[in-house]
Amino acid sequence: MSQIALSDLNTASFDDFVAVLENVVEYSPWIAQEAAARRPFAGINQLHAALMTAIQSAAPDAQLALIRAHPDLANKAQRAAGLTAESTNEQNSAGLDRLSEAEYAAFERVNNAYREKFGFPYIVCVRRHTKDSVLRDFETRLRNIAKTETRRAIEEIGRIAALRLDQLVVADDRLKVHGRLSTHVLDNHIGKPAPGIAVELVELAALGENRVIARGVTNADGRTDQPLIGGRPLPIGRYELRFNVGRYYAERNVQLPDPPFLDEIPLRFAISEPEGHYHVPLLVTPWSYSTYRGS
Amino acid sequence: MSQIALSDLNTASFDDFVAVLENVVEYSPWIAQEAAARRPFAGINQLHAALMTAIQSAAPDAQLALIRAHPDLANKAQRAAGLTAESTNEQNSAGLDRLSEAEYAAFERVNNAYREKFGFPYIVCVRRHTKDSVLRDFETRLRNIAKTETRRAIEEIGRIAALRLDQLVVADDRLKVHGRLSTHVLDNHIGKPAPGIAVELVELAALGENRVIARGVTNADGRTDQPLIGGRPLPIGRYELRFNVGRYYAERNVQLPDPPFLDEIPLRFAISEPEGHYHVPLLVTPWSYSTYRGS
Amino acid sequence: MSQIALSDLNTASFDDFVAVLENVVEYSPWIAQEAAARRPFAGINQLHAALMTAIQSAAPDAQLALIRAHPDLANKAQRAAGLTAESTNEQNSAGLDRLSEAEYAAFERVNNAYREKFGFPYIVCVRRHTKDSVLRDFETRLRNIAKTETRRAIEEIGRIAALRLDQLVVADDRLKVHGRLSTHVLDNHIGKPAPGIAVELVELAALGENRVIARGVTNADGRTDQPLIGGRPLPIGRYELRFNVGRYYAERNVQLPDPPFLDEIPLRFAISEPEGHYHVPLLVTPWSYSTYRGS
Amino acid sequence: MSQIALSDLNTASFDDFVAVLENVVEYSPWIAQEAAARRPFAGINQLHAALMTAIQSAAPDAQLALIRAHPDLANKAQRAAGLTAESTNEQNSAGLDRLSEAEYAAFERVNNAYREKFGFPYIVCVRRHTKDSVLRDFETRLRNIAKTETRRAIEEIGRIAALRLDQLVVADDRLKVHGRLSTHVLDNHIGKPAPGIAVELVELAALGENRVIARGVTNADGRTDQPLIGGRPLPIGRYELRFNVGRYYAERNVQLPDPPFLDEIPLRFAISEPEGHYHVPLLVTPWSYSTYRGS
Repeated sequence: MSQIALSDLNTASFDDFVAVLENVVEYSPWIAQEAAARRPFAGINQLHAALMTAIQSAAPDAQLALIRAHPDLANKAQRAAGLTAESTNEQNSAGLDRLSEAEYAAFERVNNAYREKFGFPYIVCVRRHTKDSVLRDFETRLRNIAKTETRRAIEEIGRIAALRLDQLVVADDRLKVHGRLSTHVLDNHIGKPAPGIAVELVELAALGENRVIARGVTNADGRTDQPLIGGRPLPIGRYELRFNVGRYYAERNVQLPDPPFLDEIPLRFAISEPEGHYHVPLLVTPWSYSTYRGS
Repeated sequence: MSQIALSDLNTASFDDFVAVLENVVEYSPWIAQEAAARRPFAGINQLHAALMTAIQSAAPDAQLALIRAHPDLANKAQRAAGLTAESTNEQNSAGLDRLSEAEYAAFERVNNAYREKFGFPYIVCVRRHTKDSVLRDFETRLRNIAKTETRRAIEEIGRIAALRLDQLVVADDRLKVHGRLSTHVLDNHIGKPAPGIAVELVELAALGENRVIARGVTNADGRTDQPLIGGRPLPIGRYELRFNVGRYYAERNVQLPDPPFLDEIPLRFAISEPEGHYHVPLLVTPWSYSTYRGS
Repeated sequence: MSQIALSDLNTASFDDFVAVLENVVEYSPWIAQEAAARRPFAGINQLHAALMTAIQSAAPDAQLALIRAHPDLANKAQRAAGLTAESTNEQNSAGLDRLSEAEYAAFERVNNAYREKFGFPYIVCVRRHTKDSVLRDFETRLRNIAKTETRRAIEEIGRIAALRLDQLVVADDRLKVHGRLSTHVLDNHIGKPAPGIAVELVELAALGENRVIARGVTNADGRTDQPLIGGRPLPIGRYELRFNVGRYYAERNVQLPDPPFLDEIPLRFAISEPEGHYHVPLLVTPWSYSTYRGS
Repeated sequence: MSQIALSDLNTASFDDFVAVLENVVEYSPWIAQEAAARRPFAGINQLHAALMTAIQSAAPDAQLALIRAHPDLANKAQRAAGLTAESTNEQNSAGLDRLSEAEYAAFERVNNAYREKFGFPYIVCVRRHTKDSVLRDFETRLRNIAKTETRRAIEEIGRIAALRLDQLVVADDRLKVHGRLSTHVLDNHIGKPAPGIAVELVELAALGENRVIARGVTNADGRTDQPLIGGRPLPIGRYELRFNVGRYYAERNVQLPDPPFLDEIPLRFAISEPEGHYHVPLLVTPWSYSTYRGS
């Protein structure tokens, strides 16, 4: 996708400004129109705030129309009929394009229950979620009252807009929409970083199959060259990091029993803050290991 | 099974002595007969040594006959035809009575390859093994020369005999045939043992399904009342201990994110010494954990 | 000191009973006299409770007389004039017989301040304290009101009595008056307990010199044969455990830099529960270590 | 001290080049003269190599004269008579200007023994040492043969020259002459870095007093803003890092006993690689801590 500089947006014609931003909030160009009047923006955070102000100060029925303009999650019929490109990409990011029939059915059930209770579709910023956490969020929010859910829907629309803006507009400041998951392997047997260790990141699924979502090998400093997840929100969910330390020690001629006490080490943890930094290191010897949420 | 005192064996008639011990070594009463002459035995270790001396000082063709008297592992036809009660129990202990068709086929393949190469059946003390480790042992031993395998077969016969003796004979001393696997959960968040944590021990299988083989709950001292495995050899193999710490902290009103950073913690390790003591503790806070081979 | 069985006390004459127990509470035979009437006692805890009931149900001026019958702590003149043997031993246990002139002066200052404020001497069960913690306790209690201090003095008299009873009377039950400090060294470099490591326990002093109060060497299980402190209360205070791991690894031909990264490892901690169990283990490699309050 | 660009040295007159570099090696301008002929140098490492080549290819008696041109360490009379500014600064860096009479005597003894055995002064790059490690190095080297010590002296002259060059000459590349000591405090009680913790670095002395050589406070990321030692070699020696975690937890209203189990935590370790990176983190809860050599 091509990007545009904030400075260009600040000086663009009203029509051009609206054309660029109209899909930042789903099917609702009036929001960009309102924001256009508040130019110039000192930064992208200010631009985002202007869009949110437009929504929050709109009349209740305009807000409701906005919410209703959103598609259902994982709805086969709507997908067949065509979503915005943005919605399609977002839903795919959480694996909603890879659902089994049983999973489609589960989503349809909760979508219908939600619509029936509140009269509008369930909205969530799916880039911040895994399939599992979306279904848990559904259940939690189904217990809310309508007023709470209207507020929650607008919050999620704001998060979706922030991620779309972040991809679309280049400015001096950044929106805080990305997280980072990193690791580090320290070999306490020799007091040095452990290089050459294969690392896998697996997304654990209550529903369906676990899925390897990143692979890496530790470098000379015991870290992967790239974060395991970076440059995007960390999807809320449960994960397992797997480290192949058996091979590492075997290659270093450390005297080990057969089979070695430690071989593949799994570190299981959950992510709850999509914009947070999760550093999950492994301190290891052939006979011990530890981990912690680091920084 | 009824047990007999070593002192009674020492003073029993020759025939009674042989009758009691004849199945300690599969279908080979001559071994008990030789040992009978060396009575009295000061302890069960001495009795076991006498049986082994009888085997080791036998002529090569007697040794070969002894080895050939043993059944194949996991052989359907032989099981149907009937094994000794001892063999049946031992093979079942490693799950050889729960094999899938594919697994039976795998065992048949290696049994045949072994018989073809060496002219006698593969013998292993199965109580010291899991399905996985038996198959790995097969592969390793298939690469040996015949002389080595004759020696290895007699060693394994000695281990089988020791376990049978341990169940059959009561003496002041004990044979070193049992191992122990224990755990301990320390809550470093409050500096105390962690009670009430559900613990599962899973046998990991390369072949077939993982299997929960022990369950427990930590007591006031953070330990399970009974060892996770005790009073028998620890089967060589790969295991996972799983601790439900998410519930533990949730019940103690510790402030946790949703989902909690740590919930079910898996500790994955292997056992290579069936007669060893494996203490695998968990030191834990809501944000960190460590383990090590302890004592 | 010779001990007496509770059963003998239960059947002794009134005079003998009082004679045995009169010094359990300093210079106050009336307490033993009251308790004598409540015989027989099912256990030593019940006997102690009877003594405490006698004190707590006494008239205020009898309580005050009891409190005033106690000597000052670390008072040179009183020591010269002679204390009860019990008081002398107890004060010596906290090192109050080894005070420097400056320390005597410090104790005299707080004793006088306390007497002046409350009209009776400061009473503390010194076996549960170090010099440092007595002085800190003094300062805390000086800020109390008289009623609180009367109650606190009787509590401490109860603790003193419990320890004296524990030494004097043998029964089926035990008073909970002892603590235990233990350690354990696990060598995570080889996955085994670390034998042969010299361990020192040092009492850290804010006032005066640090003092080695126990020494040990780890056995084959990585523990000292005896607890570092046991069979008595753990004196409240600050401590350092010192482990000579440099020599341990050097003797095992582990490749180490010169000087080794770790040599003498100090673990510094405080004891606040004299009747508690403090297990302070060391998990160590040549490049890492950890400790925690264990059990 | 003013610095000069390598490019300027490359194009300077012969006399200017020699004038700038003549003190890089003590009292021996011939070395700079030889190196001058090899210009231009692509980098500072190449310049340093040229100086070392000049020394190593010199005749044995020129080498010996070079060695003999160096002053004794910690020699009162020589210091009174005046050393080069470089020597004075270097000797002071290791605290050789703060010696007690007993320490001066110890240095005099080993200096004399060394001179007597080898016929030249003991040379060491003192910036890489503490008082303690210099005396240990003395003892080790006194056991060498003369040939070894000639080589060792030239090595040390090379290290001294490298440090002097590093301060004097600016180039695109850097000599590897600096180390770094850093720390990091992770609060495993709350899963976050620990800010506001006072940290002291103490140099431990076998001889004389321990000395606080750096102080810091952890920032929002749990690190000190500056490394505890950086931009210079790490002096070989024994150290203790002290962390005031008692105050940290008390200020956060964590429920703690009185006195707290952990208050000031000492981490004791040694540095053996002056040009290395030592990262010595503290993972801590109110009831546990661990450290390791990190990266």
